[in-house]
Amino acid sequence: MDAAALWQRYQDWLYYHEGLGFYLDVSRMGFDDNFLQTLQPKLDKAFKDLAALENGAIANPDENRMVGHYWLRDPDRAPSPELKQGIIDTLEKIETFVHKVHDGEIRPPKAPKFTDLLSIGIGGSALGPEFVAEALAPDFPPLAIHFIDNTDPAGIDRILTKIRDRLASTLVLVISKSGGTPEPRNGMIEVQNAFAAQGLDFAKQAIATTGVGSNLDKTAHSQGWIATFPMEDWVGGRTSELSAVGLLPAALQGIDIRAMLAGAKEMDAATRIPDLKSNPAALLAVSWYYVGNGKGEKDMVILPYKDSLLLFSRYLQQLVMESLGKEKDLDGNNVYQGIAVYGNKGSTDQHAYVQQLREGVPNFFATFIEVLKDREGSSPEIDPGITSGDYLSGFLQGTRKALYENNRQSITVTIPQVNPYTVGALIALYERAVSIYGFLVNVNAYHQPGVEAGKKAAAEILDLQTKVVQLIQQEGKPMYLSQIAEKLGATEDIEPIYKIVRHLAANDRGIALHGNLGKPNSLTVSTT
Amino acid sequence: MDAAALWQRYQDWLYYHEGLGFYLDVSRMGFDDNFLQTLQPKLDKAFKDLAALENGAIANPDENRMVGHYWLRDPDRAPSPELKQGIIDTLEKIETFVHKVHDGEIRPPKAPKFTDLLSIGIGGSALGPEFVAEALAPDFPPLAIHFIDNTDPAGIDRILTKIRDRLASTLVLVISKSGGTPEPRNGMIEVQNAFAAQGLDFAKQAIATTGVGSNLDKTAHSQGWIATFPMEDWVGGRTSELSAVGLLPAALQGIDIRAMLAGAKEMDAATRIPDLKSNPAALLAVSWYYVGNGKGEKDMVILPYKDSLLLFSRYLQQLVMESLGKEKDLDGNNVYQGIAVYGNKGSTDQHAYVQQLREGVPNFFATFIEVLKDREGSSPEIDPGITSGDYLSGFLQGTRKALYENNRQSITVTIPQVNPYTVGALIALYERAVSIYGFLVNVNAYHQPGVEAGKKAAAEILDLQTKVVQLIQQEGKPMYLSQIAEKLGATEDIEPIYKIVRHLAANDRGIALHGNLGKPNSLTVSTT
Repeated sequence: MDAAALWQRYQDWLYYHEGLGFYLDVSRMGFDDNFLQTLQPKLDKAFKDLAALENGAIANPDENRMVGHYWLRDPDRAPSPELKQGIIDTLEKIETFVHKVHDGEIRPPKAPKFTDLLSIGIGGSALGPEFVAEALAPDFPPLAIHFIDNTDPAGIDRILTKIRDRLASTLVLVISKSGGTPEPRNGMIEVQNAFAAQGLDFAKQAIATTGVGSNLDKTAHSQGWIATFPMEDWVGGRTSELSAVGLLPAALQGIDIRAMLAGAKEMDAATRIPDLKSNPAALLAVSWYYVGNGKGEKDMVILPYKDSLLLFSRYLQQLVMESLGKEKDLDGNNVYQGIAVYGNKGSTDQHAYVQQLREGVPNFFATFIEVLKDREGSSPEIDPGITSGDYLSGFLQGTRKALYENNRQSITVTIPQVNPYTVGALIALYERAVSIYGFLVNVNAYHQPGVEAGKKAAAEILDLQTKVVQLIQQEGKPMYLSQIAEKLGATEDIEPIYKIVRHLAANDRGIALHGNLGKPNSLTVSTT
Repeated sequence: MDAAALWQRYQDWLYYHEGLGFYLDVSRMGFDDNFLQTLQPKLDKAFKDLAALENGAIANPDENRMVGHYWLRDPDRAPSPELKQGIIDTLEKIETFVHKVHDGEIRPPKAPKFTDLLSIGIGGSALGPEFVAEALAPDFPPLAIHFIDNTDPAGIDRILTKIRDRLASTLVLVISKSGGTPEPRNGMIEVQNAFAAQGLDFAKQAIATTGVGSNLDKTAHSQGWIATFPMEDWVGGRTSELSAVGLLPAALQGIDIRAMLAGAKEMDAATRIPDLKSNPAALLAVSWYYVGNGKGEKDMVILPYKDSLLLFSRYLQQLVMESLGKEKDLDGNNVYQGIAVYGNKGSTDQHAYVQQLREGVPNFFATFIEVLKDREGSSPEIDPGITSGDYLSGFLQGTRKALYENNRQSITVTIPQVNPYTVGALIALYERAVSIYGFLVNVNAYHQPGVEAGKKAAAEILDLQTKVVQLIQQEGKPMYLSQIAEKLGATEDIEPIYKIVRHLAANDRGIALHGNLGKPNSLTVSTT
């Protein structure tokens, strides 16, 4: 395509939203009119399905749940007056609570004010809050946020050591729908131990965001925690950033959550329009479909040219991959769907892996995220008439051009600046694009059966560990791995048994290994 | 394969290194003896090429350079006495300097001691130091490190705002081989401005790691910076963590760099053995070759089950993708090589995208990184007899098993704990695996032509910007984009011109756009 034709294509496909100051450019995706015509019936059906979903249809048939994250930013759209009122009430409760915390009206027993916020959650209860904190938290927030988002003992220790001198003024937020997910439960117990070790009353410094009536909810009420906030049944973890899950920590950090909601609402309105060229989420979904043949054949590389958007790719990894990465379609066929997502930030990544993107295996498409405003205030000149921001902008343009010239496709998203309004809009944009793509490829984008299976597999390992330890203690003499497996009637599990005792032996847990560590069959296991 | 056969395969292929306490398990990669036999001649040649490389052969023919990062941890292997002495001298210089900084003998003019370290670098001059800081820095390091690793004005502002009250006690480290790479140069100029604004003498608080005789080296000497450290011509950016590039900031943070070097040296010795089963780097390279058909057909997903290893995947993204992502092989054929790398940490990622790994598009293989030791000290019980670390270990096992059952292949790397010795070994392991794989697929793993091309493309954009601004100022009346392009004799560049003026207009740079922002052709451009 010559320069004039390409410029015409650019203009023909440029999407612009005046209210959001938002641009979307899909001109460097290779689809043509033929492709679009072929896809049109599927797209029309997707628009119809999406409208039904927004009106409260059961869009998650496996779990028999409604999908309601769109209602959060426009409660009038909730399918019942009760749901609507619930959304409004939660938002007001968050704001009232945050106001009181910031004012010192709600304060810890042994300090005048809360200074720090320790958020304990994983997956959808961590990635959104982490992304938003990195993107939007002020330089000196009223509460500085820290995250425990795993069950790694050393990782928990590191966080607790960092804030040990401020534990008495740390507000702990536990985010877990059921309270039964092991990672946040373990983190909570470890943090409770740390509080006890300092003679602090955990309950007086703790709040929870959890399902109403969940085990965590009951614990919080019975122990007299400061407050609880609801995690709705109709909001999935990966689309919960604009529910209490994300809004509460954001507000505690001083981020304007009404602006986040307003940006999302504006983008929701724009992406509800059942017309490809007028709908940026549809433009994304159709572009993804095109480039990966509707089978995820190309990875999605996310390149925001703005440091504060560093975690957007991690956020999108979950949103896209957990929603779309499915074995079966809605008709029960094996389809092995999904789109792999990765990326960090430009231009930094140009000095990391863009070498491969430009020249190597062409198994991806790029999404550039451009932020027009460089910084607050003016910039010094680096060269005559040229600023650091001009370089950043030039690198984005240069890389996009070079990819195109090497037949690598790309999308460019442009926002005027990084603020609560535009971040809310970005979240809504990708939520909707994933919804539409899910309909296009006919998968349930709202469940995660593989995650449940992972929890179950881990529980089996822990169950096996208990049995192995009991046996070793009972026997009181060294045993080979094969003997342990046989005595437990678990000869198929000899390898997990080996891993279990190796891990225990490395942690002074009363188990010792003797023999050649490189030859598992030579090892005997005993108590120490 | 039944459980007994699988357990046999596990043991047959288990690699163990006693000195390092290091295990590598490739039993869940699907290769068989036939495949290995076929690959053997290539592997033998790779071992031979690698030996030549270590002895100083020109392994980077495009740039006519030796590849010497292996010498850094075993100077006796350097191909000349001068090179050997240079390595020894640099290490001593680092240690002497760091000692003096920690003691306060080298101190800033207006503070008793340096408290913070501001590292300015990008790519290989940032990813290694960032990974190592996250993995190894003590909780309360003698100097707290901060990174400027981009040319994003808002990102620079955020860092400088964070340390503004400690700027008088901040040591600035500029890392750039030539000093000409725009990102670190821009960061340095912005930081110099911040120092000037506080009335601080930048030179008295600045050090550089740079090529001897480079522009940056000359600047540092003429301005009287505190010290400079050499960046050797025969060390590539992505393999520079164990040169002054990585060792200096590590040592300043109180990390034991001799232990890092010792771990790398031990792993180097292990991975020098020209026998597959005795060489963990060869086992990795052969596994990668197998799973991706020697063409990078599967992405490499890195899943360390340890928070402190979070940045290892970003480090490997550069090491693997920049080394292997090449258009041409060494014979000049178009091959479009590479392996895409991504990942964060387990079990967190299980709640993000492992849904897709388990069930979705099978376009990847996983690398689990297991750390046997959970934490310093003992762990509380979460359930009877069960700790947080048992859960973490169980999640790793459960996910690995589930992937295998769904025909997704995986590698498991096991280290006893995260410390300077094992991190040095991990770096050396992957450096060598990439070297071997590069030889197996016959690419130059030591250059990065695409990065240079990206710099050039950006320079053209900045050049165009200067011309556009001059023209608009000269003309003094509103012009359409097409008119600007025509007057500049750059009708092919109308889209870049549009992007340039849009960016300038968003940043109060004296340029204004009028018309419908969604219709570029309708816009006129003028001075404000």
